[in-house]
Amino acid sequence: MPKDTIVFVLLEGFADWEYGPLAGELADPQVDHPAFDVRYASDTLDLKTSIGGMRMQPDITLEQIPQDAAALVLIGGTSWKLPVAQAVAPIAERFLQEGKVLAAICDAARFLGANGLLNAHQHTLNFAEDTAGEALYRNAAGYRPEEAVRDRNLVTANGNAPYVFAREVLRALGTPEAEAVKWYEFYTLGFHKAIAKYYPNN
Amino acid sequence: MPKDTIVFVLLEGFADWEYGPLAGELADPQVDHPAFDVRYASDTLDLKTSIGGMRMQPDITLEQIPQDAAALVLIGGTSWKLPVAQAVAPIAERFLQEGKVLAAICDAARFLGANGLLNAHQHTLNFAEDTAGEALYRNAAGYRPEEAVRDRNLVTANGNAPYVFAREVLRALGTPEAEAVKWYEFYTLGFHKAIAKYYPNN
Repeated sequence: MPKDTIVFVLLEGFADWEYGPLAGELADPQVDHPAFDVRYASDTLDLKTSIGGMRMQPDITLEQIPQDAAALVLIGGTSWKLPVAQAVAPIAERFLQEGKVLAAICDAARFLGANGLLNAHQHTLNFAEDTAGEALYRNAAGYRPEEAVRDRNLVTANGNAPYVFAREVLRALGTPEAEAVKWYEFYTLGFHKAIAKYYPNN
Repeated sequence: MPKDTIVFVLLEGFADWEYGPLAGELADPQVDHPAFDVRYASDTLDLKTSIGGMRMQPDITLEQIPQDAAALVLIGGTSWKLPVAQAVAPIAERFLQEGKVLAAICDAARFLGANGLLNAHQHTLNFAEDTAGEALYRNAAGYRPEEAVRDRNLVTANGNAPYVFAREVLRALGTPEAEAVKWYEFYTLGFHKAIAKYYPNN
């Protein structure tokens, strides 16, 4: 059975720590749930440099994002306020309208709000004020001061919560609840407490 | 003043979530402490693919690691048991002997043990048994079942603890204690609790 594709959008200045936990879990062939085909899209196929100074080779351009991808994940960074990001908005809107998973963390969540894509869903942002003055944002009542918020097929998170973000994306993708929680606790309880809880005979 | 260089070693199959928190903090020019020049080294300059399926362009080969780099950070992944990793051992040994920071997470910590580089320092591993049968490992008494252990210039951590690992590397690099703790708490207390604690007027 072909694997479902999940596309991460990484622009110049992307945040290393925001994509890693989710990408590693989704693509790892050794995990319990079916691993996904994770693809990295950017505005061009030129190398993109992360905040951490890593140079990343995009797999596809934004125009090449497959129509049948299961999810679109927008990773925060320093480019979401720049013109180069605007081409992402209609793609994100299509995922949202088709009921596919759309996930955005940190400034990418603000980007969705600024483009009118948080108006029908509960959501979070780094700060509630991040979308102040944005003409297309009309859902201040839907803001929740949580680390991550999942409302149907939309997941938003602040940039300090990549593990909560990843857990909510796993849930949105239909990962069994016990598995999503187990994965999250492995990275937040601490390794030895998690081993004691889940593998007491190890 | 030229920035100190910190070299991350990423081999094929590196763990995305293990390098990200530390790299983002060290390289970010917006942080409080002087940002470092973070460089990514690998066995060749060919693209290397992470567990998360990201293709990374190394900056330098192992042979090109600067003699005057301030720290060497070995990121876990699927290649540390392969012959390709062996060339890293003498480089790591040089950093350790010169008193520079040597840090290794997950299977890279086991790699240090297997190459006799954990014999004079307290350390951790994913499991204490990871170095069982390794002829050059003679320091079972120095193993600590912690998420991360810092002993002088050596930092080791298990693969589920990238934030504890990063905090200990920041400390080893001389980051002021309050700053290291503040950074760690931002990513582990939760964004809103951290804001309330550190920026109560925000």
